[in-house]
Amino acid sequence: MKPIEQCTLGIVGLGLMGGAIALALRNRGILPASGVDGSLFACDTKADVLSAALGSGLIDESFTEAETMLRECDLVFLCLNPSTLLRFMKDHMAAFKSGALITDIAGIKGAISAVMEKDLREDLDFIPGHPMAGSEQGGFANAERCDFRGKNYILTPLRRNKPENLRYLEDLILRLGFGRVTRTDPEEHDRKIAFTSQLCHVIAAALIDCEADTAITRFGGGSFEDLTRIAMLNVPMWTELFLENRVELLRRIDQFEGSLDALKQLIAEGQEEGLQERLARVRDRRTAMKNEN
Amino acid sequence: MKPIEQCTLGIVGLGLMGGAIALALRNRGILPASGVDGSLFACDTKADVLSAALGSGLIDESFTEAETMLRECDLVFLCLNPSTLLRFMKDHMAAFKSGALITDIAGIKGAISAVMEKDLREDLDFIPGHPMAGSEQGGFANAERCDFRGKNYILTPLRRNKPENLRYLEDLILRLGFGRVTRTDPEEHDRKIAFTSQLCHVIAAALIDCEADTAITRFGGGSFEDLTRIAMLNVPMWTELFLENRVELLRRIDQFEGSLDALKQLIAEGQEEGLQERLARVRDRRTAMKNEN
Repeated sequence: MKPIEQCTLGIVGLGLMGGAIALALRNRGILPASGVDGSLFACDTKADVLSAALGSGLIDESFTEAETMLRECDLVFLCLNPSTLLRFMKDHMAAFKSGALITDIAGIKGAISAVMEKDLREDLDFIPGHPMAGSEQGGFANAERCDFRGKNYILTPLRRNKPENLRYLEDLILRLGFGRVTRTDPEEHDRKIAFTSQLCHVIAAALIDCEADTAITRFGGGSFEDLTRIAMLNVPMWTELFLENRVELLRRIDQFEGSLDALKQLIAEGQEEGLQERLARVRDRRTAMKNEN
Repeated sequence: MKPIEQCTLGIVGLGLMGGAIALALRNRGILPASGVDGSLFACDTKADVLSAALGSGLIDESFTEAETMLRECDLVFLCLNPSTLLRFMKDHMAAFKSGALITDIAGIKGAISAVMEKDLREDLDFIPGHPMAGSEQGGFANAERCDFRGKNYILTPLRRNKPENLRYLEDLILRLGFGRVTRTDPEEHDRKIAFTSQLCHVIAAALIDCEADTAITRFGGGSFEDLTRIAMLNVPMWTELFLENRVELLRRIDQFEGSLDALKQLIAEGQEEGLQERLARVRDRRTAMKNEN
């Protein structure tokens, strides 16, 4: 790969994450100004988003048809939902520039990794990725709310990924502001993410689902707000993530219910000592997690 | 009641909340400087806490025996755990200055309200209260982390409370920085708080309880951290709150489990449309809660 400032970069899907990546590329001086260094292209189905991004100098060129853009891009960020992503790769496989480095941002990695191991063109490199950042307010208009600083980024490399491309992408990710890049396999990613991300969203949704009184927030002290902020979710995307990763997610829900039932029983039986012991273990474990971070 | 700047104020228990109230009284100019306006007294069992508070000018006088202090105080904040609070009132009922206004901060109101309706001295006024603020880091040393700005404060007045004392306390609460004071009865308080506060803490604890790998935070993107921050809990206090409010809390856990099971079933059966509908209702409801706030 050429140095990033000599590359033509393409973003497919200028939503929350696509927009946030474009902003980080500009604001962090990776591509200092429109037209000066390497080019930043974007394609999207929304004409108003493209014209806003073009008008502000965020991107150098906009495309409504991906083919034209892909033919010129050395590096492509696919910022699409999992199902759209698979279809997009199938439909546009022929359009990519030979030698291009491609990466995605989908929150589940099993299916895309399996398909790419099998079907990716020989002269392309595709590194599946998952930036652990976001905002409950979606879309390009909220891209500025998506803060990368210190956040986690997971890569689930294919067997065929070139080591130098992996290092190249990891370096770029850190320059975008992320705090840590972890390499793992797609199975482990999907298992862990079922817990840290999908289970948390299901729990937040269930908490809101079981209380119809919207004035309950008069009795909120921060915990409730923190636990349920993510219930303001992007419905199609999370439906897709829950269903796509359902085996792992259901396993995690069962585990969580087991722990919840154990606590419930201690409370129901008034077992003060047992409850204190269990809560002390929880407190220490969560504190260890914080210190590990 | 005299104007606050002519009062002698006493804080019983200079922990996180007692310390935060003292800080707010000073920093917001309600009692501008030690010794100039009304006096601020505090009693605590920890000598080091008292000497730190005295040394910094936060309080005017410190007491290890409550009796001596209570005899001089026009207004008393009881910043104690629920069980300690009931015992304290029983043991010190005779010590309060005649006409004193007393309030507490305990996170559960049923028992204290019932006892005070019955046993409070005729010449005292006790207004049960619950500041909906805190920090997962407890103790006086962390009092500065406890931010009152815009937070909720619940009062569960006794039938015998003087209307002018209720207004007096509400005015003081708002001057301390709280955003909203809600009056309700102790039963409603305990029902609502079982949901917004205790259930959230049980859920956070269960989430940590079911995953032993402390390095899971490498796969965290903010949701997990937000949902489990409160799992670093003050174990004795929360054990007490869970057990004291167990009837309402168990009812809320059951409700939550019902919603969680419904979502689990939609996921297990791959009901995309049903899941989207339910999540959309959740999203809209949480958005309405946010706008209501």
